Amino acid sequence: MAKKTAEEFAKEQKEISVSEFFEKNKHLLGFDNPTKSLLMAVKEAVDNSLDACEEAGILPDIIVKIKNIKEDIYQVSVQDNGPGIVKEQIPRVFGKLLYGSKFHRLKQSRGQQGIGISSVTLYSQLTTGEPTRVWSKIESQKKTYYVELHLNTVKNEPDIIKNEEIEKDMLGGSGVRVDMILHGRYRRLVEDYLKQTSISNPFAKIAYTAPDGTKITYPRSINELPKPSKTMKPHPYGVEFGTLQRMLQKTNSRTLLSFFTNEFSSVGNQSAKEICRISKVPEDTKPAEMDRATIEKIIKAMQTVKIQRPPLDCLSPIGADELEKSLKKEYPSAEFITAIDREPDVYRGFPFLIEVGIVYGVQEEKKNGKNGKKNNNNGDDEKNDESVDLIRFANRVPLLYQQSACGLTEAVKQVDWKRYNLDQKGNNLPSGPMKLIVHVCSVWVPFVSESKEAVAPYPEIIKETKLAIQDAGRKLSSYLSGKRRAGDAKRRIQIFERYTGEVAIALNILTKRNEKDIEKKIKDMITSRIHIKEETDETPKAETKKPEVKESKSEAKKKETKTESKK
Amino acid sequence: MAKKTAEEFAKEQKEISVSEFFEKNKHLLGFDNPTKSLLMAVKEAVDNSLDACEEAGILPDIIVKIKNIKEDIYQVSVQDNGPGIVKEQIPRVFGKLLYGSKFHRLKQSRGQQGIGISSVTLYSQLTTGEPTRVWSKIESQKKTYYVELHLNTVKNEPDIIKNEEIEKDMLGGSGVRVDMILHGRYRRLVEDYLKQTSISNPFAKIAYTAPDGTKITYPRSINELPKPSKTMKPHPYGVEFGTLQRMLQKTNSRTLLSFFTNEFSSVGNQSAKEICRISKVPEDTKPAEMDRATIEKIIKAMQTVKIQRPPLDCLSPIGADELEKSLKKEYPSAEFITAIDREPDVYRGFPFLIEVGIVYGVQEEKKNGKNGKKNNNNGDDEKNDESVDLIRFANRVPLLYQQSACGLTEAVKQVDWKRYNLDQKGNNLPSGPMKLIVHVCSVWVPFVSESKEAVAPYPEIIKETKLAIQDAGRKLSSYLSGKRRAGDAKRRIQIFERYTGEVAIALNILTKRNEKDIEKKIKDMITSRIHIKEETDETPKAETKKPEVKESKSEAKKKETKTESKK
Repeated sequence: MAKKTAEEFAKEQKEISVSEFFEKNKHLLGFDNPTKSLLMAVKEAVDNSLDACEEAGILPDIIVKIKNIKEDIYQVSVQDNGPGIVKEQIPRVFGKLLYGSKFHRLKQSRGQQGIGISSVTLYSQLTTGEPTRVWSKIESQKKTYYVELHLNTVKNEPDIIKNEEIEKDMLGGSGVRVDMILHGRYRRLVEDYLKQTSISNPFAKIAYTAPDGTKITYPRSINELPKPSKTMKPHPYGVEFGTLQRMLQKTNSRTLLSFFTNEFSSVGNQSAKEICRISKVPEDTKPAEMDRATIEKIIKAMQTVKIQRPPLDCLSPIGADELEKSLKKEYPSAEFITAIDREPDVYRGFPFLIEVGIVYGVQEEKKNGKNGKKNNNNGDDEKNDESVDLIRFANRVPLLYQQSACGLTEAVKQVDWKRYNLDQKGNNLPSGPMKLIVHVCSVWVPFVSESKEAVAPYPEIIKETKLAIQDAGRKLSSYLSGKRRAGDAKRRIQIFERYTGEVAIALNILTKRNEKDIEKKIKDMITSRIHIKEETDETPKAETKKPEVKESKSEAKKKETKTESKK
Repeated sequence: MAKKTAEEFAKEQKEISVSEFFEKNKHLLGFDNPTKSLLMAVKEAVDNSLDACEEAGILPDIIVKIKNIKEDIYQVSVQDNGPGIVKEQIPRVFGKLLYGSKFHRLKQSRGQQGIGISSVTLYSQLTTGEPTRVWSKIESQKKTYYVELHLNTVKNEPDIIKNEEIEKDMLGGSGVRVDMILHGRYRRLVEDYLKQTSISNPFAKIAYTAPDGTKITYPRSINELPKPSKTMKPHPYGVEFGTLQRMLQKTNSRTLLSFFTNEFSSVGNQSAKEICRISKVPEDTKPAEMDRATIEKIIKAMQTVKIQRPPLDCLSPIGADELEKSLKKEYPSAEFITAIDREPDVYRGFPFLIEVGIVYGVQEEKKNGKNGKKNNNNGDDEKNDESVDLIRFANRVPLLYQQSACGLTEAVKQVDWKRYNLDQKGNNLPSGPMKLIVHVCSVWVPFVSESKEAVAPYPEIIKETKLAIQDAGRKLSSYLSGKRRAGDAKRRIQIFERYTGEVAIALNILTKRNEKDIEKKIKDMITSRIHIKEETDETPKAETKKPEVKESKSEAKKKETKTESKK
């Protein structure tokens, strides 16, 4: 066999553009199948709109329309009332992968990669050849920009097909509208996504038109935007060798000491001095002049010195009250709703925070295929073999796929749910007529793939999630045990009720009073007791206290006996 | 609150280099934790070496050394006897992500993304600041090239630190050596990877030195390279709109007809004409002049016309015989070994092929933590609650992580293992003292992430994998039922043996012959029967046939009875 030489190999080597890579690996971006692809288009556009509105300080008003063009070709149209995009930026925002404002900063936002919406352009043109159409109106201009564009996969740059300035406001104020035509399949998953988005973004209004013309509006439950999150500097605890090296080369600070206080969050003069002291590197060393050995010493010292947690105003949680409100709006028929939020924690220098909501005894609406869940009645003490519905969010974005690969799911499974009065088989999700909402927000959510469907199972995140679930679980547990006690009391009353007739006969013999009157009195007494029990349902007493009815029954007996002996 | 304007947003937008992206998302490349990171370094280098040797037609001789530099810093050194890399290409091959020869062609190889080895450079410099060091010797030159390089993450280009031509052959012939120093943790997983690599590459010799100095050699079990695989053209069935559009624009063919026959595999003149006829596009249309509607018609016609399967010489399976040989070498103590290969099939226009091996009753060597498996004796009919070891390969590369997310695992679980005499609980992996080897090879393996740890669960791949497992399962099943029957027969003989003494006494009374003589004769008879049974173990007879021993016993009884009655 003829050998292939190094020179021959060399001729075949070439660069691969990131667009070519993701076009071939489109499943990495979430375009695995037609149903998911259609959802991705809606999701990427809506997430961008919410980010833009929130950051611009505008209460979001979003219009989503899906139209079935023919067979398996759909048009997705998303319009917002955000600040709009300046003319020059439109092509790259929608037609270049790895382009955006969110990757290089440390601040919570829905997008973080600069891939999302351009990947929809990539997928649309791959499957239908149709360009992405964008209308943008910014506040400082009267006209509307209109652009039609493709993504040039060889260069990973936008190809502008049409570029127009329309001399009027086409969007009714500032904002962006994007239309994309792609190969897809329509499922109710889109509604699930919008409904969940509405739960985690209670300040957003979303008006949706389905392919069959059905219109659904997800209204605001709060008329105020969350407190805006701030951009943070890196925290010393999360910095790796290469990153520190780069920071040292780029900094304008003249000394190591000022480098620390200027370029890092949570590092004051004292911590900076302490790092220098421990690493034995002089405070006035010029940052750019450090060799590898010195940088290594500094890295080690940075991990040793006690430094404050990173600032937490870079996070923007939903808030326990807002989440509860939001859940009450979405599940008005639920028996019990609670929500809690944890204090922020840190993984690898990145602050993050967990929120958990529980909706128990929810009247299940018609389910869309997937697991074919049956309607759950408010299942009292009945055994229910079905898993709870786990609803996961990351930075307010619903995660609809890869549940079993997600660190949040892992945390739910690790909780001992029997302690909170729910069934759980082995290390599975617990069972019950319940929705469990888990939200992680962070300046950098570690997703397991570019399609951002599942959170990597970092130990810190799992631990905090478990603690949050336990907090919420305790509330659920006290509700459920109250309910169980009330149920027990009710059953005891029912047994007593069954013997009312015989008791009445006995009392008639003893007291010579009218049997019917006695029976009526006993029944009245029971009825009023039941009312008292039901009113106290929400704040059940300690387990040890005996039910009142039982007591009165035995007291009544005692009295009867006394009467008898006196005779 | 002050609104943020579109102009302010615009200032923040910027490009993200693919290296910056993967540096921040290094877990996507498999650098999740120190143990895995060290393995990734070995794996990427060895996979590249095997690809280079195989393609150059050289029997691979690979040397792998891991050295513990200090604490959690390791040096990984991999040397091969491949064709070497020309001087100009070294920096980009090792210092630029998305660069290589394998992405743009359709041919089976281990690498396919142009990411692997440069990602190790990225990770090394991030965690230790150390450059990657490369020695390369090509056949046409006497000297050795030496390069030290970093990866510039902002530009995604190599930064050459040192560049030398050494005037002698440093590698003992053509080849490449690469040294990388990175943050890691050493576990026996590296040996698992090398051992499995040796199974799937029986023509490769790998000499390994562990951090503690232990040397292990994985020898060749075959002295011949597999038949070289060929590059294929795209198959019409797998082509999407955007891809076809691009092909039409780029082609040198002047007519649609010649475009089809020149640019696609499996399309002859007749199929090409048929596509034109069905799509109603004239055969002499100029490829570059087609509009969207026309391309759409052609795409549809391409899916309708019956076209031959893609050529299969682009695949390079291990081969059933070679796999079996290889397994016998690795598991010499196993009770039963079999391997099968399937005919190739196609998913989305890409040919692929499944091979399956079974190693049953294997003496388990000491396991390295993970599941803490106990030693399995050749567990006869004993129940064994532990799952079989599933060993997955894609294009001859062992897949050591993400087993549960893998389509190959999914296929194993979907098989009804009880039919093949193995325990299986629900839809889990079957149980038993068994190793199940599954190999998928394809011109394009759809991995679920850049780290190439699991195969996406495409229905075609799952289906073929199940069929392959069933083929192998039938062989296992007939072995196991033979074994069971032999066991049953043995037990029956043992029972008979237990009563030898009494039978001898009875016969002594009847025949007056010496009791001891009789006993010895019976024992001799039993011994010879057992030998006969054991020899026929491998080819058991049909279930219905009665064991011979039983027959002879009852015959003996009949004879005795006759003797008695004659008396």
